[in-house]
Amino acid sequence: MAKVKGPTPQSQDFSQWYLDTIQLAELADYAPVRGTIVVRPYGYALWENIQRVLDGMFKETGHQNAYFPLFIPMSFLQKEAEHVEGFSPELAVVTHAGGEELEEPLAVRPTSETIIGYMWSRWIRSWRDLPQLLNQWNNVVRWEMRTRPFLRTSEFLWQEGHTAHATREEAEEETARMLGVYLKFAREYAALPVIPGRKTEREKFAGAVYTTTIEGMMKDGRALQSATSHFLGQNFARAFEITFQDRDLQEKYVWTTSWGLSWRIIGGIIMTHGDDQGLVLPPKLAPIQVVIVPIYKAESKERVLSAAKTLEAELAAAGLRVLTDDRDQYTPGYKFHDWELRGVPYRVELGPRDVEANAAVIKSRIGEKETVALGELKNLLPERLEALHDALFARALEFRKAHTRVVDDYEAFKEAVAEGFALAYHCGDAACEKAIQEETKATARVIPLEFPEHGVLQDDEALRETGEGVCVRCGRPAAYGRRVVFARAY
Amino acid sequence: MAKVKGPTPQSQDFSQWYLDTIQLAELADYAPVRGTIVVRPYGYALWENIQRVLDGMFKETGHQNAYFPLFIPMSFLQKEAEHVEGFSPELAVVTHAGGEELEEPLAVRPTSETIIGYMWSRWIRSWRDLPQLLNQWNNVVRWEMRTRPFLRTSEFLWQEGHTAHATREEAEEETARMLGVYLKFAREYAALPVIPGRKTEREKFAGAVYTTTIEGMMKDGRALQSATSHFLGQNFARAFEITFQDRDLQEKYVWTTSWGLSWRIIGGIIMTHGDDQGLVLPPKLAPIQVVIVPIYKAESKERVLSAAKTLEAELAAAGLRVLTDDRDQYTPGYKFHDWELRGVPYRVELGPRDVEANAAVIKSRIGEKETVALGELKNLLPERLEALHDALFARALEFRKAHTRVVDDYEAFKEAVAEGFALAYHCGDAACEKAIQEETKATARVIPLEFPEHGVLQDDEALRETGEGVCVRCGRPAAYGRRVVFARAY
Repeated sequence: MAKVKGPTPQSQDFSQWYLDTIQLAELADYAPVRGTIVVRPYGYALWENIQRVLDGMFKETGHQNAYFPLFIPMSFLQKEAEHVEGFSPELAVVTHAGGEELEEPLAVRPTSETIIGYMWSRWIRSWRDLPQLLNQWNNVVRWEMRTRPFLRTSEFLWQEGHTAHATREEAEEETARMLGVYLKFAREYAALPVIPGRKTEREKFAGAVYTTTIEGMMKDGRALQSATSHFLGQNFARAFEITFQDRDLQEKYVWTTSWGLSWRIIGGIIMTHGDDQGLVLPPKLAPIQVVIVPIYKAESKERVLSAAKTLEAELAAAGLRVLTDDRDQYTPGYKFHDWELRGVPYRVELGPRDVEANAAVIKSRIGEKETVALGELKNLLPERLEALHDALFARALEFRKAHTRVVDDYEAFKEAVAEGFALAYHCGDAACEKAIQEETKATARVIPLEFPEHGVLQDDEALRETGEGVCVRCGRPAAYGRRVVFARAY
Repeated sequence: MAKVKGPTPQSQDFSQWYLDTIQLAELADYAPVRGTIVVRPYGYALWENIQRVLDGMFKETGHQNAYFPLFIPMSFLQKEAEHVEGFSPELAVVTHAGGEELEEPLAVRPTSETIIGYMWSRWIRSWRDLPQLLNQWNNVVRWEMRTRPFLRTSEFLWQEGHTAHATREEAEEETARMLGVYLKFAREYAALPVIPGRKTEREKFAGAVYTTTIEGMMKDGRALQSATSHFLGQNFARAFEITFQDRDLQEKYVWTTSWGLSWRIIGGIIMTHGDDQGLVLPPKLAPIQVVIVPIYKAESKERVLSAAKTLEAELAAAGLRVLTDDRDQYTPGYKFHDWELRGVPYRVELGPRDVEANAAVIKSRIGEKETVALGELKNLLPERLEALHDALFARALEFRKAHTRVVDDYEAFKEAVAEGFALAYHCGDAACEKAIQEETKATARVIPLEFPEHGVLQDDEALRETGEGVCVRCGRPAAYGRRVVFARAY
């Protein structure tokens, strides 16, 4: 009898569990070029759901999609000093094309601030041309030394938003607005209790004035930067001479922002919710929300399958993404395990006696079996999927809290970051941050920031604390006026 | 007073008209790297509509999206002899990455048969793994000598479908099915009266057994290959050792297909429907289907704008993509020209007297003004957009017929291809085809094929003719059993 191969247990080797789960659930596979992956249909369907939700949120907030080229002249990247320093080591470079050596080598975009800055310098003339509110869904390349599917790949898919504004205020509002969009997406769709806030100077985007981030905790206690929104000030405006004539007839530099979320979020979903059986997908993003597993013998096959198909049509009409697993070569038990591995939020088991009794057995990916009336499923399952979303969020939040420690001395700090987040005061000095990293492998992940409309910090009292402590490592007066989240990170 | 700058008239310089229209309507702009373009929000919104419709059709026919990497080892491309010969001259090559020279240079994908073939050779084991029905929306790079926005760009966006089947028949059916999807899309959404059929051996895809195509006629009489569907036989299966164990326990090579449509179709839409005022967009794909232009003086502004906004909400609720142009700095006349340039299918003019009379003036992009009752617009406009679609299709079909000549001697052939399509018998010899190209600049575009479910050849009696003529150029017995479409092409 065929058996579903499960991943290595999390407790045995979390990293191997992650890699196993991705392969076994057929989310992705390794491609021949170092650090690249193939996203298989099941993984891509998850990405499409992420795209659909976010794209709608971007458009609601007034953004339009566009497409800028893959190739950027090397000279462009050199125009913003911090930017080139940050990205040069990771560039892939095209030197030959059409059978000839190119006069100027081309960078394969690692991000598109420079080329968009160049185009804006041609498009923007007047205050009437502002704001520019653009987004693109595309692929970028960053040649990383150590790679891991979804989390760090040589090429990845993402969206990068780029906006230009007449005033600093508007650009800062935009930076916060888009972090708010990511926060809402993470919490309300991916069930990820991420912490919003700012990056330290040492951890900010190369070329930004400051970077905001949402940071999640994975089940091994490590942090994952899940999306970022950058206030770029006038750095790129000056580098690319992006100016406009304002209402007062003065020629001024624009203020720009950029913000991005990549397929890395899939890694975050896997490592926040998954368990030893495999994936656990958040209901609002799962490619298949409900799987119907018909249970039959030869004599009952026809009527069970027919009932399953009727139910499938009913649930689909109710707006659910539903599939009947009518594969003949596998047992129901095999199918249960197979769909658990793939993280399908709910399954419906339907046997001949159920059909007779107008009932079915349902089971959430993380819950117990229960018997319910067939006719109620189309109303019940949408509610149950909502409840499962809430349960996943609550479970992940509990886990994060249980693995977060408020620490005031360096020994406790070291213990905390060995298994989760340390909330500590820090002096703000980059050299001290670097020393912490060398001594503990932990980095400053996020300086928490309240987003009142999301009430995020309400989740966790420790995050809300403000005060004037001393640096957990060096004892100098603390910066930021509040505790910083430190952790080992992906 | 600001005036809308229009394109160069088509009759004066069609090629310049095309370039002007793209720039002025803000569909796209030139990017700094040779042959690359930026697709601006208006152009990208058109592409998104194209994607949405096609993606739905692909999924309805059982396909799933996936994502394969941008970079392909050079050695992969060399595994299929015709394929490498066809694509090598156009490759962009990454030789350096992460600050080092790579051991094996990487091709930036010109198309993905090779990398997908490699992955299939790992994934496919049994007949149960077939068919594989995949598609991806992505960017590809082909370093062309002469480039033109949308039609031929160094990098372009497209979709590439790739399927693998257990039998030749299934793969051939798939090849035809997907050409049928493109045909339906072209006719029913883009209002393009394209001609479906096969390519000659000389014109087929590098690596295919045969290529099917839809060919459109542009307003300068030249042909545009608008999408292709290839039957690849076992060429790639043998090159990449893609085998499966069949029901009879024999190990067999799979049969594969590939099919693609790119943003080139946008060029086809522009050059089929556009006129001296600029774009004319097919209603089902237009980013804005209806623009409302309020006409007011200071004293009437508030009530006209309020009526416009009410109407906009009503039309949006009826499922239309509608925009009210409430820009204060432009006159209504400027706005009329501006939206004509951008090809918006219908406009509604709304002035104070209209508001009082509960009426509005409507005008299709290619028709006359008429006055209608405000309350009827939400029912009337959807009908009118349908009718405009039909009118655009009919107009383009008439144009194509008027510029197509059935020819049996070479002088008439030369005259025909100077201004449109020549329908001629041909011997099928590649050397004779090449001679025709050298002598007339025309190439064999398509050997027409009936698609009964679409009734396409019913459009044009000349295309339906079958027979056994002699070659229009060399007098040898004709191949194919029917006339071939020859034309100068983009």
